[in-house]
Amino acid sequence: MNKIIFLILNFFFLLLQRMAAEKLKGIITAAIVENLDISHLSPPLNQYCIADLGCSTGPNTFFTVNTIMEAITHRCDHLPEFLVFFNDHVSNDFNTLFVTLPTDGKYFAAGVPGSFHRRLFPKGSINFFNTSHALQWLSDTPKQLSDLNSPACNKGKITYADAHNEVVEAFASHFAKDMDSFLVARAQELAPGGLLSILIACRPDGMHPSKSPFGLFLDPLESSFVDMVNEGRLNKNELDSFNIPVYSPSASELRLLVQHNACFSIARLEEMRYEPVPRISPQSIRAGFEVILSKNFGNEIVDEVFRRYAEKVEGCSFIRDEEGIACQLFILLKRN
Amino acid sequence: MNKIIFLILNFFFLLLQRMAAEKLKGIITAAIVENLDISHLSPPLNQYCIADLGCSTGPNTFFTVNTIMEAITHRCDHLPEFLVFFNDHVSNDFNTLFVTLPTDGKYFAAGVPGSFHRRLFPKGSINFFNTSHALQWLSDTPKQLSDLNSPACNKGKITYADAHNEVVEAFASHFAKDMDSFLVARAQELAPGGLLSILIACRPDGMHPSKSPFGLFLDPLESSFVDMVNEGRLNKNELDSFNIPVYSPSASELRLLVQHNACFSIARLEEMRYEPVPRISPQSIRAGFEVILSKNFGNEIVDEVFRRYAEKVEGCSFIRDEEGIACQLFILLKRN
Repeated sequence: MNKIIFLILNFFFLLLQRMAAEKLKGIITAAIVENLDISHLSPPLNQYCIADLGCSTGPNTFFTVNTIMEAITHRCDHLPEFLVFFNDHVSNDFNTLFVTLPTDGKYFAAGVPGSFHRRLFPKGSINFFNTSHALQWLSDTPKQLSDLNSPACNKGKITYADAHNEVVEAFASHFAKDMDSFLVARAQELAPGGLLSILIACRPDGMHPSKSPFGLFLDPLESSFVDMVNEGRLNKNELDSFNIPVYSPSASELRLLVQHNACFSIARLEEMRYEPVPRISPQSIRAGFEVILSKNFGNEIVDEVFRRYAEKVEGCSFIRDEEGIACQLFILLKRN
Repeated sequence: MNKIIFLILNFFFLLLQRMAAEKLKGIITAAIVENLDISHLSPPLNQYCIADLGCSTGPNTFFTVNTIMEAITHRCDHLPEFLVFFNDHVSNDFNTLFVTLPTDGKYFAAGVPGSFHRRLFPKGSINFFNTSHALQWLSDTPKQLSDLNSPACNKGKITYADAHNEVVEAFASHFAKDMDSFLVARAQELAPGGLLSILIACRPDGMHPSKSPFGLFLDPLESSFVDMVNEGRLNKNELDSFNIPVYSPSASELRLLVQHNACFSIARLEEMRYEPVPRISPQSIRAGFEVILSKNFGNEIVDEVFRRYAEKVEGCSFIRDEEGIACQLFILLKRN
């Protein structure tokens, strides 16, 4: 593709994404302003701690933090001092995150390395948790899926999309376990009156989990791997034992998990279409999945797979949404 | 040098340093146990926040944090949850720091990028500050020293060691200004009953600042730069306008600065010889000063300078201490 056209298109999509983020901002702001309880802020400290879990390297996390801070500021008579914790896996590039931190002095900032499926902060120390598009990552791949002798082995596939029932159930129950440990940890870390805001890609209610929206952009990736096996360039067992640890729940599924966990009550739950409908971009898919793929298959195989992937998706420039597949879920939780 | 001999020697010196650190640990532990006031710990939170300022990439910072935590644990009836903030400049390699963080779960950890000459934390949020061998770095080089037309220009030199009076005074007053802003920021950030522990290289009381101990290992570096100028391989103005922004105070000088600042009272002040006496190691000198030198002179010049430096210091394997030059200062401060 002509480079200038590509740059213009990219700019256009960034603009659309930003417009969508602005719209989402309104919903999030209203939900926070409505549910914020500032009576518990310890008066001698007058500090408000926010943590963004699964922040990556920015700039989306900075935008989200600003949205949250503005909403909180709405409700405060005099401004607290904000301390914002940016969390992601220890392998995240915190150096890049720190270099790009806003320098407007609106908040103090800290980076926190580690998995959010475990405790990350002292008890009662955080006033507001946010996590955007990170909870779909499982803490691990369900073990039985990689066991070549197990009936649940996900042979010839890398996701649970259109997989057989044992596979889908293994993913769903791993997600349920992860959500539970996530909620238990956050409930301990939240200060009285604290809030937990979650944004996650979801499938519409009533749709079987095997119809995962991830399939839409991961199917061509899977078929690139299968082609490589058929051509003898990749060992079949290597593909059979590999799975990408992502899962997207439905709104009802997530509601049930929160209720079963019992640490939180749901203050707000909204299912929203992605606007704009995400475009299949080989670059962004590669950015999202390269680390885990390279770790398993090596750089050479992954280079070749993404070359083929780019060819396969060249025709289909958008993820379909006629079936309502591409949607996301916003949930605001209050600690019980 | 034979590589194995080098490795054995290095191991030997690391061992000696560790033994010295163990001895220092005793002094620091006693000072903390004596001065800790836990009555102000907010009981519902039961958290204790420690910040190590100028932590670099470890492992020394982990050792120091353990020492502090053990001392605090001595005084607590039931263990608080510890949150440790590791601070250094935004250019510090936090990725490496995070990868090497202890995984024993004794504390929660966060990285905080930014200069400790400014505010880094919300008011009253930190219970214990530590800074080891970081405060000798000035926030900047005094401007007049780099002005080729100023009488205070430090021509042909890179430190204030054996420099003329205007230069020495410019360094001393910049250090005084930095200490003041450092103490003002920490006083705001410390919780009631909080402590601030400082370890810094110093010169003995009564010695003129121009006899800086930094001269001992930076003189050969300076003379390597001068040689390069004389050989026409480096522009004279480049050397004349450059200064390494480090300064080592005496105990009395630091005591006066703390008293003048008036935010803290001195709970303990100890001047100690380095044990073992530091060895001039071109590798460690390079590690300490490479970033600032490369930024100013470029990698090529710096490579050549350190080749010459290694040759010059090959004869002198230790920093002399007969004159009592190589010493450090431990100060424990309480917020007034």
